[in-house]
Amino acid sequence: MREVKLSLFGFGNVGRAVARVLLSKEAFFRERYRLKFRVVSVADTSGVVWLPEGMDLREVLAVKETFGKLSSWTNDYEVYSLTPKEAVREIDADIIVDVTNDKNAHEWHLAALRDGRGIVTSNKPPLAFHYADLVGEAEKRDLPYLFEATVMAGTPIITLLREGILADSIEGMEAVLNATTTFILSQMEMGQDFERALKTAQRLGIAERDPSGDVLGIDAGYKATILHCLAFHPITFDDIAVKGIAEATSGEVRRARERGRTIRLVAAVERGKVVVEPREVPLGSPLAVESHENAAVIRTDLLGELVIKGAGAGLKETASGVVSDIIKAALKV
Amino acid sequence: MREVKLSLFGFGNVGRAVARVLLSKEAFFRERYRLKFRVVSVADTSGVVWLPEGMDLREVLAVKETFGKLSSWTNDYEVYSLTPKEAVREIDADIIVDVTNDKNAHEWHLAALRDGRGIVTSNKPPLAFHYADLVGEAEKRDLPYLFEATVMAGTPIITLLREGILADSIEGMEAVLNATTTFILSQMEMGQDFERALKTAQRLGIAERDPSGDVLGIDAGYKATILHCLAFHPITFDDIAVKGIAEATSGEVRRARERGRTIRLVAAVERGKVVVEPREVPLGSPLAVESHENAAVIRTDLLGELVIKGAGAGLKETASGVVSDIIKAALKV
Repeated sequence: MREVKLSLFGFGNVGRAVARVLLSKEAFFRERYRLKFRVVSVADTSGVVWLPEGMDLREVLAVKETFGKLSSWTNDYEVYSLTPKEAVREIDADIIVDVTNDKNAHEWHLAALRDGRGIVTSNKPPLAFHYADLVGEAEKRDLPYLFEATVMAGTPIITLLREGILADSIEGMEAVLNATTTFILSQMEMGQDFERALKTAQRLGIAERDPSGDVLGIDAGYKATILHCLAFHPITFDDIAVKGIAEATSGEVRRARERGRTIRLVAAVERGKVVVEPREVPLGSPLAVESHENAAVIRTDLLGELVIKGAGAGLKETASGVVSDIIKAALKV
Repeated sequence: MREVKLSLFGFGNVGRAVARVLLSKEAFFRERYRLKFRVVSVADTSGVVWLPEGMDLREVLAVKETFGKLSSWTNDYEVYSLTPKEAVREIDADIIVDVTNDKNAHEWHLAALRDGRGIVTSNKPPLAFHYADLVGEAEKRDLPYLFEATVMAGTPIITLLREGILADSIEGMEAVLNATTTFILSQMEMGQDFERALKTAQRLGIAERDPSGDVLGIDAGYKATILHCLAFHPITFDDIAVKGIAEATSGEVRRARERGRTIRLVAAVERGKVVVEPREVPLGSPLAVESHENAAVIRTDLLGELVIKGAGAGLKETASGVVSDIIKAALKV
């Protein structure tokens, strides 16, 4: 049995879903991988709960869900005021788990790598802007730097590209990587206009209050950038062309449907060229996804066409990717 | 640059396709993985060409394609008469590549592992009958024992199950794993009866002269057994239920089509229960594959449904899986 020390950054919906998977599947991980996780710290924006001997995640979840923030916890544990950069340096952990939305997280990722810690992240901007630095630093130090949940949640497209088709040269990929836009476009197919479809998505919690990341294509663009880095060479989000769905009219969307086609926000990834834009796809195509499904069609020299399709959003679906990476990192560190 | 010594067993269509990929992508493997492969032996059923300093695969391919067997080669290289078991022990190689159909290959796989050699195989019976022994021996010695190409050719379902969804508990899988039966059933949908469809498949080289492995469901059964071993626990082919397509009538097949469904040879894999049989699937299902495509639908606790679809047969498609494993093993040994 190996005991591995985890330091968890971010305790919003995804962070708590990760904690719940770590709790509920503890016996499974112990039996299948002979791994036991000791969570030595949990941080939200209010503070860092830090207990070197490990904490009871049930209690941390209860506090967060009762009071809304970890700093309200005044009983058993100390709550520290540390920046993430201070925290990754001070807290003795084997693996840093970043499930925040911190756009500047690359700074503390690099600091953690330099201190010899492995990293698992679902946070996209660090990779979309600093892939070469981060992956380079991790490779130099032979440390895990894993990011399955950044693209298609737990659907393992990153593993597939990194470990599954090593002999193939990738020629291109087309993918639907954002579920919120799929939902909005589906509503528009049923007759709603864009504004009303967006409001429906927000009411159901599918779109965020500030929906720009999804509808302007930024989220899909981050993901497409990461796929390009993996398949070809490192680029940044600034190098790609992104057009969202805000200008799509319900007339266009319905007319596509009448022609047996459907409009989806498609990421097209070729060597040195990434385009994210609404495109018509045939209804029989793997890209004609519905609901929270994502799909990618990967074209290679040896295999021809390879399709992977699965959940691209959702809390336990995202936790699936994060915890799969935690296990992979734990088997390595 | 790492130089890795390969010993290749089997030089039929798949073995030669592997040799061609090793040749044609030599620069790619060198640049991307800093790996150089030195093929120290190539064996077919007629003999073993063995050259410790490595051989020119172009020459070996030319001899095989000109004379049909390696033992006809009397010029530059020695051709040895060695059983595979003798060969794996005598020949100094880092990785043994088995692309034979030898049903008793588990014996020399075990011998090779005990001598500290990694193994890459596309040969199904050793795994379908001796999974626990082989994988157990490899784990005990921390040696690679890789078999991506045994199921769905190079489409990386093995990597996906072994390395992609480590946090998930698999609930079940349904898959179409045999392309020859898909071809025959497609022909029957167009009005041919079973016998005639089989003859067409044989004429086109899609079915073998002795087609029983495909049409009786044995090939799909081997693959389904391997998937069960990976997802749940080791079993053998003797533990599963297999029914082929030989009894399907063109009437049944056409009537299914009229109902918007299609009959495919489906492998259903659950914990402790594997069934391979012709089943009706809706035309919109991922399992309604055509041509040489295979597909698998994997159901898990966290992700829900995950689909992987791609080439399940073909020479360069199979070589893709074999060479991907060779690279993975080479990065490990």
